[in-house]
Amino acid sequence: MKDFSCPQNMYSLKSRDGRNICFAGGDGCYLFDETGKEYVDLWNGFGSVLLGYNDEDIVKGFNYLISNRALSLQAPTSYLKQLSRLLLEDYPHKSQIGIFPTGTSAVRAATLAALQKTGKDFVLSSGYHGWDVMWSKGTRLFEPNSYGVIDFYYIIEKLEELVHLYKDRVAAVVVSPDFSYFGNAFYGKLFSICKENKLLIIVDDVKCGYRYAWGPSLSPEAFPADIYVVSKCIANGARISCLIGNEDIMKHISDFCFTSFFDIYSTASAVITLKKIKERNVQQKIREAGDRLILGVEQIIKKWGLPISITGNGNLFQFVLASSELSEAFYQQCTDNGIALYKDDNQCPSYAFDDNALRKVLSKFEEVLSSMALMFPGLLGKDIPIKRFHLAAYYQTDGCAEAMDYDEKVSLITELLYR
Amino acid sequence: MKDFSCPQNMYSLKSRDGRNICFAGGDGCYLFDETGKEYVDLWNGFGSVLLGYNDEDIVKGFNYLISNRALSLQAPTSYLKQLSRLLLEDYPHKSQIGIFPTGTSAVRAATLAALQKTGKDFVLSSGYHGWDVMWSKGTRLFEPNSYGVIDFYYIIEKLEELVHLYKDRVAAVVVSPDFSYFGNAFYGKLFSICKENKLLIIVDDVKCGYRYAWGPSLSPEAFPADIYVVSKCIANGARISCLIGNEDIMKHISDFCFTSFFDIYSTASAVITLKKIKERNVQQKIREAGDRLILGVEQIIKKWGLPISITGNGNLFQFVLASSELSEAFYQQCTDNGIALYKDDNQCPSYAFDDNALRKVLSKFEEVLSSMALMFPGLLGKDIPIKRFHLAAYYQTDGCAEAMDYDEKVSLITELLYR
Repeated sequence: MKDFSCPQNMYSLKSRDGRNICFAGGDGCYLFDETGKEYVDLWNGFGSVLLGYNDEDIVKGFNYLISNRALSLQAPTSYLKQLSRLLLEDYPHKSQIGIFPTGTSAVRAATLAALQKTGKDFVLSSGYHGWDVMWSKGTRLFEPNSYGVIDFYYIIEKLEELVHLYKDRVAAVVVSPDFSYFGNAFYGKLFSICKENKLLIIVDDVKCGYRYAWGPSLSPEAFPADIYVVSKCIANGARISCLIGNEDIMKHISDFCFTSFFDIYSTASAVITLKKIKERNVQQKIREAGDRLILGVEQIIKKWGLPISITGNGNLFQFVLASSELSEAFYQQCTDNGIALYKDDNQCPSYAFDDNALRKVLSKFEEVLSSMALMFPGLLGKDIPIKRFHLAAYYQTDGCAEAMDYDEKVSLITELLYR
Repeated sequence: MKDFSCPQNMYSLKSRDGRNICFAGGDGCYLFDETGKEYVDLWNGFGSVLLGYNDEDIVKGFNYLISNRALSLQAPTSYLKQLSRLLLEDYPHKSQIGIFPTGTSAVRAATLAALQKTGKDFVLSSGYHGWDVMWSKGTRLFEPNSYGVIDFYYIIEKLEELVHLYKDRVAAVVVSPDFSYFGNAFYGKLFSICKENKLLIIVDDVKCGYRYAWGPSLSPEAFPADIYVVSKCIANGARISCLIGNEDIMKHISDFCFTSFFDIYSTASAVITLKKIKERNVQQKIREAGDRLILGVEQIIKKWGLPISITGNGNLFQFVLASSELSEAFYQQCTDNGIALYKDDNQCPSYAFDDNALRKVLSKFEEVLSSMALMFPGLLGKDIPIKRFHLAAYYQTDGCAEAMDYDEKVSLITELLYR
C-alpha cells in the first residue's frame, strides 16, 4: 500500500496503472470508487460484510447509538451481555466468550490457552490463522517452527504420524474448516484422531463460523471442539473476533485484557448483525442467490468455451482458471468492468445481493468473458489442468485439498514452500 | 467479567455488591449507568477518549459516514490517506505508518520487525506493552523469558549491565515513556546507551503519544527513536493503533495483514480526532483544566488531613494513598459518589472536562474525603510511607520510579514478582 505510505501488503483492487483504487462508499452489494464508478461487490471486505454496505439495521443501530449518546463509549454496556447471550445460544455446550479485536489475536489467545492448560509445547495446525509469526513455516517440512507449531496442511495421514511421533508434547490441533475442499470424511478422521489421543481441538472458524448457518460451521454434535473462534460473519465488517469455550480452558485468557475491549462500535455491530442473521435466515438467502449467480456465470463460461471453473457454493466460492496469465487477465478485466473480486481467493456475496445485482453482474461477466475469449483464443475448449485445482485449494485454504493423493500433497507443499 | 459470561478480567467500576456497573451512555466528561446515575469520568476508557463522549465532531463525522453510505466499508478510502498524512506530519523524519487494531498487536509487530531486521534474538523492555505472552516475566529476574525478552523495569544501571552481558544478541530496547516517574535525565541515559551500542529503539507511546502535545511524547530531536507506536490518544476510543517508522524496519511488517485493516470506523475516528486536537490545542486545554482539578482536590485532601497525594499533571495523574485499605475505600466511595476513576492507575480528564464539571467533581470529592476522614480517624495527619509511592509508580508503569535507589528497585521487583 505504498500510495498510502503503508508497507502492509493489503490486497485491494488495482487500476490498470497499478494504483490502489480508493473507495467512497457502498450500498448493499455495490461499492463506489472516488470517481463514482460502481462495482458489484463479491470481494466483500474479505468476506466480512455479510449483510452488505449501508445496511438499514446497521444504520438504524448507529443512529440509535448517536441519539443515545453512546458513541465512543468504552465501558461495559448491555450490548456486551447481549453479545454473550446471542453467541452462547448457538454453542449449546459452551458457557463463556472471549473478546478480541481480530481473528489473529483471538486464535493466538486460544492456542496459548491450550498450551497453558495442557502444559505441553507443540501445536498441530492446518489453515490460515492470521499474520502472527507463531504460524510461520518451520525450517523443514513437517517439523516444528520455533514456536512449537507444525503445519500438516490438512494431510490427515501426516496428522496421524505427527501425533504418534510427538505424542506427549502435542497440546492441540488448530484447524480452519473449509467446505470447498474438505468434507465430513476429513473432519470425521481429524476429530477421531484428536479424541483418541486426547488432544484439544481449536476450530478457527474465523472464515466459516456463521457463514453457512448459525454458529459453528461444523456440527457441534458430530464434531465437538474445545474452543471456537468466530469473526468475519458476526459483525458486518467491524473489528471484533470472539472465542467460545468452557471455563477449564477459557480461564487461561483471563489476563488477556486490552484498552478497547469494551469498544461500542464493534460490540453493537455484532449484536445487530447476529440478531438480523437469526431473524432473517440470512445465510440461506445468500446461498440461494449465490447459487443462482454461480449457475449464471457457469453458463457464460461454457458459452465462451473458456477453461474456468467454480468451486464452493453460493455462500463462498472460488474461480479456478487454467493458467496464471488467464487469472491475471480475468481479475483485471473484472475490476475494469466493475466487478469487485478477491483475487485468487474466495468470493462472498452478501445478503444484499439481489436479482437486480444478479442481472447486472451477469451482464458484466458476459463483457469480461467475451473479451477474454478474444484475448486467449488458444485456450478455448481446453481443460483446466488438475494442478490448477490443487493450487486454487492452496490459495483458499493454505493447505492441500482432500481429493489429492498423498504424494501430490507433499510435492505441492514442497514446491510452493520448500524449494 | 463473570456477569458478562466472559473470563477476561477487564477493570470496570463495581457496585457495592461486586457487580460490574453497566453503562448506557456518555456526554462530554459524564458517564451514565443503566439506572441513570451520572458519573464525572476521569477513568476515560483507560485514557483513550481524549475528546470525551458524544463529541460533536465525532458525531458529525459519523453522521457524514452514514449519509455518504460509508458505514461498514472495508476497502481503501481517503481517510486512510489522511491518517498517514496527519501522523507523518508530526514525525518529521519518518515516512511510513502501519495499522493495527490494538497497542498489543502493534508493539508486537514493531518488536518482531526489529528482531527480523537485526537477525538478533533478545529484546530489553521496560513498561507495559499489552497482554501478549511475549512480555511475560522470565523464570529469573533479569534473565530472558522464553521469547528472548528481558524486563529491566526502568532500572538504567541494569539496562547498561544487560547490554554489555548480551551485547551481540540484543536487537532493540522497547520502552513505554512515562512522565510522572521519569524525567529527561532517565531518557537521556537510555537513548545514549542505545546509541552507543547501536540498538534499535522502539517507543511504545500507546499511553503517552499525543497525550501531552502532538506526536511523540519524547522530543524526536532530543530522543530520536526507530519506531513509535501510538494508540490511546489518536482515535477517541476507536480500536486502532499505528506504527510510525522508516522503510528499513517497516518493510518487515509487510505481511502483517488482517481482514479489518481498512475498518472505516476506526480510521475515520482517528482522522477526526487528530484534526481536532491539532486545530483546538486540545492537550494544552486538558492540561490547564486538569491542573485546576488537581489543585482543587489537593486542597480538599489537605483540609481533611488524609494521607493522599497526587502525582503527574493535568493530562494524566495518579492518586497515591497511604495504605491499601484507604485505597479500597477511596475508589469505592468515589464510584458510589459518581466519580469514575481507573483504580490504582492513571486518571485522564478529557477535552470535555470544563469548569462546570470541575465544580461538580470537587463537591463529590468533598463528600468522599469528608466521609473517609470519619472512616480512617487514625490516619489523619499521617505521612504517606515512601513505599506507597514506589508501589504507585509500579502500578502505573510496571517498573521502578527513577527516584528510587538501585537496591530499593531490585527489592521492590523481587517482592512483587519473584517471591
